[in-house]
Amino acid sequence: MKIERPVSRQPIPEHAERVFKGKIFDVYQWEQEMFDGTKKTFEKIKRLDTVIIFAVMDDEKILLIEEKQPGSEPTLGGVGGRIEDGEDVLEAAKREFLEETGLVAEKFVLWKSLQTSIKVDYALYFFIAKGVKKVAEQNLDGGEIIKFRYLTFDELLEISRTPEFMEKEVVVDLLEAYYDNNKKEEL
Amino acid sequence: MKIERPVSRQPIPEHAERVFKGKIFDVYQWEQEMFDGTKKTFEKIKRLDTVIIFAVMDDEKILLIEEKQPGSEPTLGGVGGRIEDGEDVLEAAKREFLEETGLVAEKFVLWKSLQTSIKVDYALYFFIAKGVKKVAEQNLDGGEIIKFRYLTFDELLEISRTPEFMEKEVVVDLLEAYYDNNKKEEL
Repeated sequence: MKIERPVSRQPIPEHAERVFKGKIFDVYQWEQEMFDGTKKTFEKIKRLDTVIIFAVMDDEKILLIEEKQPGSEPTLGGVGGRIEDGEDVLEAAKREFLEETGLVAEKFVLWKSLQTSIKVDYALYFFIAKGVKKVAEQNLDGGEIIKFRYLTFDELLEISRTPEFMEKEVVVDLLEAYYDNNKKEEL
Repeated sequence: MKIERPVSRQPIPEHAERVFKGKIFDVYQWEQEMFDGTKKTFEKIKRLDTVIIFAVMDDEKILLIEEKQPGSEPTLGGVGGRIEDGEDVLEAAKREFLEETGLVAEKFVLWKSLQTSIKVDYALYFFIAKGVKKVAEQNLDGGEIIKFRYLTFDELLEISRTPEFMEKEVVVDLLEAYYDNNKKEEL
């Protein structure tokens, strides 16, 4: 089943011009007719969509990645990475999961997907991975120091509220699951 | 009391070069030494910080703004706008609140502040305004159609989960307040 891309609430129109092409970010501008007939230059950013995987291990602990990049405070979050141009979303999730952890999973369930901001065309896809098995070593580049952390659901909920936890988009789902056992079962 | 700016977990270093200056977004790049001694070009975006105000009216209903911009689906959220260069955060909140609604408030309480993403230097400041009084008409430009909505707490919680609600950063606080009456009193 093809996973649909979440639509931005202010799509970049086809006639928009790419005014800057960066390493991560491209900037688009276009002339937008306003409600009163005047025109204004609108601007919006595009970056490659990202997959983020929360893996549930056999003992029900959840795998988080503690990451240290050069020049950056450590961060904590799911296993994640960019979807290559034209790459299938689920394939990207499997590829990033294997590269960053050396693991494969029997099941990848799409948990939620969303656009993060009206002025940035950028979709996030959150997956839950189950039936996890080690098949290889990690495959990292010189800019990454990655440590595995295994947390219980309650530990994850607590840590999700701290500044180093990156995926704030799922905190609300975790909290809801905490208060609602049916939803917890789903996870 | 001076409101402190939330610090990015990957600050743009002083020697970074601004490689693009846009209407909303500026792009910075710098050479970053990696852990293995190699170098890589890092990139990060900067945009003007934003204030967002949730006003509690005398009948305890919460004021939301339904906004329609040209070329955009309608959005729903707090009263908000950009902090001008060098402007004090609280002053910006008062100014935006007055401009967009024609209202003033006795009290602006900082609810939370945060950086939204490790690759974007952009801070959000959420305020709760109380003791609200009308003193002027709205002062809008040709690109805005704005409608006021007055919601109970439960209505706000429900609507905060829909795609048109912009300030996903506060949904977790609303949900927590829903389950914890002490926190609800605080709001």
